Order: sequence, then C-alpha cells, then structure tokens
Amino acid sequence: MIKINREDNRSLLYNDALSIAEYAISESMPDKAVQKIMSGLCLRSRRVIPIAIGKAACSMANAVSALFGCAFERGIVVTKYGGAKDAPDGFDIFEAGHPLPDGRSFYASEAVISRVSSLTPDDTVLLLLSGGGSALFEKPLISEDEFLNITDALLKSGACINEINTVRKHLSAVKGGRFAELCSPAKVVTIALSDVIGDDPGVIASGPTYPDSTTSNEALRIVKKYGVKLSENALGALKTETPKSIGNSDGFFVIGSVRQLCEAAAKKCVMLGYETTVLTSSLCCNARNAGSMLASIAREHAGDGKSLAFIMGGETVVKVTGNGLGGRNQEIALSAASGISGIKNAAVFSVGSDGTDGPTDAAGGYADGFTSEKLESIGINTEAVLNNNDSYNALKKVGGLIITGPTGTNVNDISVLLIRS
Amino acid sequence: MIKINREDNRSLLYNDALSIAEYAISESMPDKAVQKIMSGLCLRSRRVIPIAIGKAACSMANAVSALFGCAFERGIVVTKYGGAKDAPDGFDIFEAGHPLPDGRSFYASEAVISRVSSLTPDDTVLLLLSGGGSALFEKPLISEDEFLNITDALLKSGACINEINTVRKHLSAVKGGRFAELCSPAKVVTIALSDVIGDDPGVIASGPTYPDSTTSNEALRIVKKYGVKLSENALGALKTETPKSIGNSDGFFVIGSVRQLCEAAAKKCVMLGYETTVLTSSLCCNARNAGSMLASIAREHAGDGKSLAFIMGGETVVKVTGNGLGGRNQEIALSAASGISGIKNAAVFSVGSDGTDGPTDAAGGYADGFTSEKLESIGINTEAVLNNNDSYNALKKVGGLIITGPTGTNVNDISVLLIRS
Repeated sequence: MIKINREDNRSLLYNDALSIAEYAISESMPDKAVQKIMSGLCLRSRRVIPIAIGKAACSMANAVSALFGCAFERGIVVTKYGGAKDAPDGFDIFEAGHPLPDGRSFYASEAVISRVSSLTPDDTVLLLLSGGGSALFEKPLISEDEFLNITDALLKSGACINEINTVRKHLSAVKGGRFAELCSPAKVVTIALSDVIGDDPGVIASGPTYPDSTTSNEALRIVKKYGVKLSENALGALKTETPKSIGNSDGFFVIGSVRQLCEAAAKKCVMLGYETTVLTSSLCCNARNAGSMLASIAREHAGDGKSLAFIMGGETVVKVTGNGLGGRNQEIALSAASGISGIKNAAVFSVGSDGTDGPTDAAGGYADGFTSEKLESIGINTEAVLNNNDSYNALKKVGGLIITGPTGTNVNDISVLLIRS
Repeated sequence: MIKINREDNRSLLYNDALSIAEYAISESMPDKAVQKIMSGLCLRSRRVIPIAIGKAACSMANAVSALFGCAFERGIVVTKYGGAKDAPDGFDIFEAGHPLPDGRSFYASEAVISRVSSLTPDDTVLLLLSGGGSALFEKPLISEDEFLNITDALLKSGACINEINTVRKHLSAVKGGRFAELCSPAKVVTIALSDVIGDDPGVIASGPTYPDSTTSNEALRIVKKYGVKLSENALGALKTETPKSIGNSDGFFVIGSVRQLCEAAAKKCVMLGYETTVLTSSLCCNARNAGSMLASIAREHAGDGKSLAFIMGGETVVKVTGNGLGGRNQEIALSAASGISGIKNAAVFSVGSDGTDGPTDAAGGYADGFTSEKLESIGINTEAVLNNNDSYNALKKVGGLIITGPTGTNVNDISVLLIRS
C-alpha cells in the first residue's frame, strides 16, 4: 500500500484526496497481474532471460522473482533514477534518464542488446515492459545529440505522446518491433503494463517487440507539422520502415490500464461517501483546460448539497511556454485553483500513478477553494505561474504538492474533483 | 418556437440534437421575462424613451411594444445585421456590425446619444440591453481605426471576452457606466439579457449603465499581457477611470442566463429519454479542448447500454491561427468528431443561442461517429481544418451545420453530448 506523507491539520477534502490517490495507485500495482500471467505461461525454453524496462521495471521483476526464484537466467532491470530501491536479486540494475534519454539510457540499452545478442532458438527473452521505456531504452539510428534535440523539440511543441513516439520509433534501433528482431533467433514473451490511453500494445514504451502500425509517412508528416528540422541522416532513418510483423514473438500480454486506475479511485470515492462519476478514462486535452473544466463543474455542483466526485483519467499535454518547474498533474491542479477560488467545499487533485509528474519529485498537485487566496496572499500570480510552467514552486508554498516517490507502477494519471456537502 | 431546417433521412441522434437545440433556444427567448419586469415597474416619468441594443434588441423591443403599445416615446433599436426583420413600430431601426463594430455601429450610437442628450429629470431612458451590445453600441474615445485594431488584436490573441471588454470599456465614451452619465439628468432603467457566465451586470454589453468594477490598472495589464501596442492617446484613455457609481440609475434587472439555457436543454433531453447531467454552465476553456473532452466522455460511456446526455454551457474561446471560416461552436463539434469516430451511438452538438456562431450564417455544429469518416472520404483532414479555423466549410460538406438564423435571444452557448442506446 502506497503511503503519501500528509501535512497535519489539513482539511477533510485534503485527507480524502490523499486517501483516494493512495488507494487508486496501490490497486494499480503490477505484481498480481504479472504473476497471474506467468503462472499460466508454459515456457519450455532452455533458458529464459528476464529483461525489465520502464518505470515499473523493479516491481515487475520482483513479481517474477518472487514467483520463480532463481529459475531464470540472470536478468536486467532498466528503470528511472530512484526507481531501483527494492531491486530483486539475479538482475543487473541500471537507472537512467526520463523523460529524455541520457547517456545511462544508451549505456543500459547496449547492455540489454548485448545480453540478447547471442541466444539460440531454444531461448526466450521475457520482456517486462512499462511506460517510461521509450526514454529509458533507446539506441538511436542517428547521433545521440540529434536524437535528443528532435525529441526535445517535439516535447516542447505540444505534440501528443503518440506523435512523439511515432517519430522516435523510426529513429530507433530498438523500438517499433526492432528489439524483437535483435533477440532473434530467441523467442520473446512480453508482459506490458499499459500507461497509454486505449492500451495499444504498439504504443507502450514504443513497442520494442510489437509490430509497428505507424509508418514512415506518418513520421515525416509529424516532423513537418511541428516544424522540426532534420539532418539528411535523420530523414533517411525516418524513411526506413519499422517491422510490420514479428516472427519470433511467443506471446504479448497487456496488463493494467488507466481505466482500472479510475475504477479504483471511484471505488475509494464511494467508500468515502461521494456520489461518483467517472467522466472519462481517455482524457487527452491540454492540462490547463482540463483544470479549468473541473473547476467549471465544481462551480455548477458545489451548491447541490451532495458529496460528489468526478473522475477523469488519461494523459494531458502541456505546451511549454516558460522555464519553470512542474508537470501536467500539478498544472491541472493549479489551473483549477482560480476557478474554484472561494468555494469552500470543493477540491481538485491530479496525480501520476508512477509517482513522478514532469521533472519534479512530486506525483501531482492539490488545490481547493483556499489555494488561490493563499497564493495571492504571498504575492504569487497564478496566471503568471502557469505561463511560466512553474506549478511546482507555487504549489509547494501552499501545501499543494502530492509526493509519493516512485510507486512501482505506471498506468497514467487521474484527476479528481471532490465536492463535500 | 425556433425551427431549425432539417435534412431528410438523417439519424435519430441528429433529429434529437436539433430538437434539443430548438427547445433550449425557444425557452430562452426574453419576451416573457421582459414583460414580467415591465408589469412590476412603476415608471412615473413624463416621458419614457425605450432604447434596445444588442442581438436580442428586436425581441425585447417587441415585448415592450406588445405590452404598452404607444405609451412610450419613439425609441431606437440597434441590432446585428439581419436581426431587425420583425422590428416593432415606434422605433428607429439600426443594423450594425458584430463581433467588430463598424461604421454603422458608430452611426447608430451617435443617434442613441443624440436621442438621450436633451432630456430632463422627469424623463426615463428604458435601456433594453443584450449581448452583442459591446460591438453594436460604441463611441470610441480614440480614433475608430485604432479602436478597431486594438479590439481585433485582442480577439485574435486568445484573450477572454472579459479581458477584451475591460480594455474596450476604458476606450469607450458609452461603456462601463458612461452611457448612464450621458442620459443624465434623465433617469435610466435597464433590463439586461445575460449572455455572460455569472450574469455580472457590468459585463453584459460592457455595462453602459452599470458602475464599472474594472479598473484602469487592469486594462493596462491586459494590453501588456497580450502585447498590444497603443498610441499615447489610447494610453491616456486607458488611464482614465470609468464611473464607479451611477447616480441616475432607477433600476437594473438581469434576465436570462446560460444556466436557464442548460436547464431547458436538460429538460428536453429528459423528455427524449436521456439520463441527463448538466456538467457545467460556466464553461470557459478553449473550444478545441471542450470538444476533445466531450469526445473522451463519449468513449467512456458509449458502451454503458444507456441513453445519456451530458450538457455544458458557457462561452469557449478560439485562438485564431488560420484564416478559415468558423465559430467556437462549430469548432467544438468538429474537434469532437475525430474523438468519437466510429462510435455509432454518439453525437456532439454545440450551438449559440443567438443563432450566429462567429462570422458565419450557422448557429453551431453537429458531429457524430460518422462525421470523421465522411470528411476523410472527401479528402478533408480534420486537424488541418482546425488549424485553419475553417470548421464551417468542413461541416457544411457533411451536413454538420446547425442553421437557425438570428433567434431573437442571446444567452450564450450550449454543447451537448448524446449517447443513444
């Protein structure tokens, strides 16, 4: 059970918010689902090599390790910095950069490639995949610098994550099914924890072992749409198609979803006495507008005399216009703050199930009817903060950060409006 | 009862959408509310001069005329082009420009000012005000060209309507309470049909007879925020405060609201068998995100096996990035189209109660699960259309326009998601 540090003497709404976040994230841990699939698998290979990649790599590797002990060959875990605290025995552990790959990402990825490069048809690579893998596991087909520049330009342009990954797949030696090719002649079994809307297996960590449904033409259209400049080399890579079928895949299982996260949050809301509506589990709009929308629902229903919860799950986008510190969940909370200002019985919180929101140590943010006033009283202008994408520093000053540390799971975000009568 | 032209052989969802739009708009006509207030008023003035300004000017003037016949002095109607078809006797009629004031706006406004300029303390100006008055009724304190340029720059910058009007009030000889001063020594009674979120009387048509709560400092901050350049003359005008109290006001009545529009829509939805939720009547986010949000709710609930309606009322904003033809309601419908593509039992429509959405002859737009496919089949890329703000021309080709003509009322917009089981 994830526990979130709580400030003392806070409101019922604040405590409800944290209880809902704790419960929803705890119910979304991958261990049980991984073990259920593993128990049903019949791996008759000579050797099974577990490779765990992503923000949830450690907990997925632990789940396998707890079930089968040392029945596997030595494996590899590649996860985000700070994510390998409880790493299992029998795995080489790498921590690396996210959301942008760094030198450690490339180094760890070389180790993974090397580990699978001299296997036989009698061997199986067990890939335990989770979100974050797009950045943590990477070997570019172009120079690392250009690769990082292209990724950075797309992230800052407001491109959605699907668009970014379509481009990255075509610039990568391991994405879009290409890692499965590198494992050949060994077989590959993949268990993927979904952090993507719709649970498309080709999108989770950019589908290293899944036939790629994106095309060169799409990738070219996206870089054009956002005006990203490319070298001749990069253009050539984009024009090379990714695998459209995988001959050596011996199974691909998707576990977890943001819908389950929403359902778990809803269950806790009901336990706490809220009439609860899951509005959507495929939210994909701009973070500031999502916050504004939740605030507008709060204004409508705060006077209804009922305790109500409205839940939205998904992955919003932030168009970076400033150089502050924040993440999409903190931006949702802060964007809602001015819209619910003065409404004493409403709160909005938003949290990433992986425990990290943007390049911060917070999992998300919390705002209630007093947040805006508190910020004003210490001279902080919410609008200016949002324009500078500095939600972290503003929320930090008014007790508006939700901090969990890395959670061991990663099934996207939930945003919740609570109205307490 | 407003009637919307319907295409033959369309779906149940389409017909439901138009029925809901017809009912909600018809229930929001100002006549009954105007007559109720007038019946309760005791105007003991020597002369009462009715001045009707705004998109609903004609129907408000007609309501007064039907009740009192020729008991009034000759009045003036200033309304949008095409809005004076059923003008009452006893009024001079002016049609003028909207959303930007034009030469006719300035000409009509001079006529209004002239009409009230030599009254006595025994006279009363009966101001029948509705939205659109901000553009239709204007006498700038600066050159008309600069006034139009500043307004245009703010409209295109993504500034919200409240921000635009804060600036315009300070550049105007008739807004922010200044028209009441021009009527002095006569008294002024105002009946204002609200088209603004929150029904703030100072915001409806920029409050020509209401004490202004916006300040010079705010106006200056807004032009700075959006980088609008000003002449010395305009800067001087912005620095001159508007009236903060009105000595000669003899009554200010607000009628209508977007909340009533939502409630009327909800009533019709229930009549048609939908389980109905009014999510908000204070929607104020970006139009494209509102459309995306409704689509994400559709994806969540289309499979619930229930007939559901979700209603949002308010006024979204469009950041103009192209030079196409459209309006915020059409943009909401088109933005939802790709998100509900393939969902056969869902539709999203959005409509302005005044019957005009942006500079088009449509009141709004309609999209269902087939719209996106239809557009693709005729070579239209939704994303490109949205970037060019050309929703009108795209929706027109697939039967996605909702056309009412000027309705005679103006209480803002509703956006509705319908799911039919």
